[in-house]
Amino acid sequence: MIEKPASKAQAITSEVRRRIVDREWRQGDRIPDEAELAVEFGVARATVNKALQLLAEEGLLDRKRRAGTHVTVNPARKTTLTIPIVREQVEGAGMEYSHRVVAQKLSPLPADIAARMALTEGAALIHLRTVHYGDSRPFQVEDRWINPEAAPGAELIDFQRINANEWLVRNFPWLRNDMAFSAENANARDARLLETRQGAALLVLQRTTFNDLGAITSVRLAFHPGYQMLATP
Amino acid sequence: MIEKPASKAQAITSEVRRRIVDREWRQGDRIPDEAELAVEFGVARATVNKALQLLAEEGLLDRKRRAGTHVTVNPARKTTLTIPIVREQVEGAGMEYSHRVVAQKLSPLPADIAARMALTEGAALIHLRTVHYGDSRPFQVEDRWINPEAAPGAELIDFQRINANEWLVRNFPWLRNDMAFSAENANARDARLLETRQGAALLVLQRTTFNDLGAITSVRLAFHPGYQMLATP
Repeated sequence: MIEKPASKAQAITSEVRRRIVDREWRQGDRIPDEAELAVEFGVARATVNKALQLLAEEGLLDRKRRAGTHVTVNPARKTTLTIPIVREQVEGAGMEYSHRVVAQKLSPLPADIAARMALTEGAALIHLRTVHYGDSRPFQVEDRWINPEAAPGAELIDFQRINANEWLVRNFPWLRNDMAFSAENANARDARLLETRQGAALLVLQRTTFNDLGAITSVRLAFHPGYQMLATP
Repeated sequence: MIEKPASKAQAITSEVRRRIVDREWRQGDRIPDEAELAVEFGVARATVNKALQLLAEEGLLDRKRRAGTHVTVNPARKTTLTIPIVREQVEGAGMEYSHRVVAQKLSPLPADIAARMALTEGAALIHLRTVHYGDSRPFQVEDRWINPEAAPGAELIDFQRINANEWLVRNFPWLRNDMAFSAENANARDARLLETRQGAALLVLQRTTFNDLGAITSVRLAFHPGYQMLATP
C-alpha cells in the first residue's frame, strides 16, 4: 500500500503531539531538526516540515529560522469568536427572527461614547434603539450610534426595514474594532425591553468599529438572561 | 495642482466604496477589471490595483486571480480572544497577585460537569475552589475539576503552592477546547468569595479542555463585578 504524503504528515503530527503530551519532549526543549526527524520517520524532509508547520500553527511548537524548533513554553491560548449577524444567529437556532426599532433619530453624542469613537462630544450622530426577537421572545437589545461621515447613506435608511447590524455588516466592513465583554445588572429600560426583571445579569458586548474614514458605529448589545456565547474552535 | 498617487488611490477607494454602498455594484457582482477602471478613472493600472487591494483587505472585495474581483457576499466578522494566565493578567494590570485555595479534594463528578467533560457522573476527580486576588482585592473566583487520567500527576500537586491555571497551562497543552461566556447573578458563595453583594452581575467563563487522553479540566471562572474582558485586535 502506498501512503499519500498528506497522511504521512498527519502521522508525524500525531506522533510529535504525543511526545509533547507525554512529556518525552518538555516545554522549552529544542526538538531534533527536520533532517534528523526525516531519517527517524523514513520520510522526505518536506513532509516533516509540513507536519511541524501544522503544530506551530496550533501553537504547540515555536519555530525560528536560526534557533531551531522548540516546544512552546507558554502556549498562547487564543480563541476565535465569530460575531454573527443577529438575524442569522436567531434563525440558526431554529427560531423566527423579527426586530423592532424603538427609536431612530439624530442625537448629540454623549461623552463616554464620543471617547470610544474618537469623535467630538455633542456631534450629531444617528442614535438607534432596537429589540431583536426570536419567536417573539426578546433575544437582544441594541443601543447603537452610527457616524454618517464614515457610513455615508446611513441617514437615509429606515432601519425598521433592514436592521442596522445587517446593513452595516453588508456595506461597511471595518478595518479595526474594539470589543469588550462584561456583565451588567439589567437597568429599568433593559428590563422593560427584554421583558425580564430589573437586576437580572445580562451578558453585554460593547463594540466600536472603524474604517479609514473614522469610527463607523459603536454599539452596546445586551443579551437576554441565560444567553451563552460559544467560542468556535 | 498635481494630485499625489496616494490621494488618487484614495479617491478611487472612496468612489468604489460609494458604488457598493449605493448598491450600483451589489454583493456578489463582478466589478470591471483593472484595465477598464484605469481608463474610466484616467489613472495608471497600478493605482487602481492599490485602491482595490485596500478594499480587499477591508473585506469589501473578493479578489481571485482568474475569477476577477467580486463584491464580497457576507464579510466575515471574526475576533480573536487571548485567554491569559490569571497571575499574568493581574500583574499586567500593575497589581500584586495572590491566590487562596478554599478547597482541594477528590469528589464525585456532578452530572452537568460530567456531560461537559464526556466522563461518567460520580467519577472521582480533583475538585478545586480558588480565589485570585489583585492587591488583596478579589479578582476572580475559580471552580475547577481536574481529570488525573488526562493530567497525570495532578493528584500530587499542592495547588496553594502553584495555582492550577498556571500548572495546567505549562504542563498540559490542549488539543481542543469548549468555551462559553455568560452572565450570572452572584450566588451566596460567589458573593462571599468575591466580597460583593448577592445578585451582582458577574461575567462567567465556562471552559473545558481536552487532549488525546480525554477531558483535562473543566472550569467556571467568575470575575469581580465591573470586570471587562477586552478582545485583542
